[in-house]
Amino acid sequence: MKIAILGGTGSIGEGFALRWAQNHEIFLCSRETERAVNVARDYTHILSNKGIQCCGITGCGNEAAIKDADVVVLSVPYQGVVSLLEKLSPHFRDQIVISLVVPMKKNKWFVFTHPKQGSAALEIREILPGSVKVISAYHNVSARKLANLEVNLDYDVVVCGDDNEAKKTVMRLTHEIKNLHPLDGGGLASSYMIESLTPFLINLAIRNKLSDLGVKFA
Amino acid sequence: MKIAILGGTGSIGEGFALRWAQNHEIFLCSRETERAVNVARDYTHILSNKGIQCCGITGCGNEAAIKDADVVVLSVPYQGVVSLLEKLSPHFRDQIVISLVVPMKKNKWFVFTHPKQGSAALEIREILPGSVKVISAYHNVSARKLANLEVNLDYDVVVCGDDNEAKKTVMRLTHEIKNLHPLDGGGLASSYMIESLTPFLINLAIRNKLSDLGVKFA
Repeated sequence: MKIAILGGTGSIGEGFALRWAQNHEIFLCSRETERAVNVARDYTHILSNKGIQCCGITGCGNEAAIKDADVVVLSVPYQGVVSLLEKLSPHFRDQIVISLVVPMKKNKWFVFTHPKQGSAALEIREILPGSVKVISAYHNVSARKLANLEVNLDYDVVVCGDDNEAKKTVMRLTHEIKNLHPLDGGGLASSYMIESLTPFLINLAIRNKLSDLGVKFA
Repeated sequence: MKIAILGGTGSIGEGFALRWAQNHEIFLCSRETERAVNVARDYTHILSNKGIQCCGITGCGNEAAIKDADVVVLSVPYQGVVSLLEKLSPHFRDQIVISLVVPMKKNKWFVFTHPKQGSAALEIREILPGSVKVISAYHNVSARKLANLEVNLDYDVVVCGDDNEAKKTVMRLTHEIKNLHPLDGGGLASSYMIESLTPFLINLAIRNKLSDLGVKFA
């Protein structure tokens, strides 16, 4: 498949690029195309230095990548996601869009800031064409651990979405990342639960002097 | 310590009685005292058959147990907890009350039913005397696994509360249960998060054909 990672030069983008490039063609996207090209080159080197076969990591701008992609990963901060997607919306067809977006802010501690739709995933679905299949996943995966190919992740990934085929595709993509276990979290209406877990996890990490927490249920 | 388990003849009561009776005096409470006495005798036999030393498990009614206890565990369903505690409130002094209570109902799936205070723990605090220290914990521990002394639990228990000493006591009690790891979840205001995780976990279990899920973050 062709997977476009929006915000791909950010922290969580690295892990997805390194893990999925072994089976898929990756478009690493940024508003600054030159930066995307450089970072994509770095990630390609990381894999080749480890002797890992790669289907290609290409740095590019958002529009071109979205047009070509089967799957678009939204690894961008909540602030700005609405204006970004309103601008990019005409370039979408019927892709799978994976939202990692968490609406949260920091007061004394991190708090989930309920969008009026209930979750970022539902808000994002309102902006994109109805033919796009929005899936919510990966909110609670540690960027640092995902990027370190030596780390045994051993976490569960709750996948929510209203299109069953698209959800299955994302669950398969999750399975391809060693030791990540996809769990069916139901429809997109349940996404608020996994989104709101993120600020809770961050607070838990701060309070208990832990880092890079994930979630495991089984 | 003297630990009273309200709803102690129910499913989760067995595990706490069996695990904590090794270090503490347990009052197993039920509205039906005779039933409590019989169940307490059964649990005592389970421990003696395994050759495990026990500080005593006594079956009794709610009022007497609360008066004597240092810690009161509320392992009762949300439905009925308000009327039960309104009746029992005069018998409380300054005990630690551990709420396992989850306000939820089943539509097609299980849903968290927000009390107007935000969580069951905050609602319970309103009913009890101000000198009582309400702590919220153990919502996501499997009753079946807790009751099976051979099972390696290996789960995290998020403990929320506004009295730091009381919270530390509950974290110590958690540590005494082999492989349960207490995590400081902050004040009682955060309890809604661990309470609402319970219906989410039950739905996850049903959807993914799993059972007795717990939570692990680290």
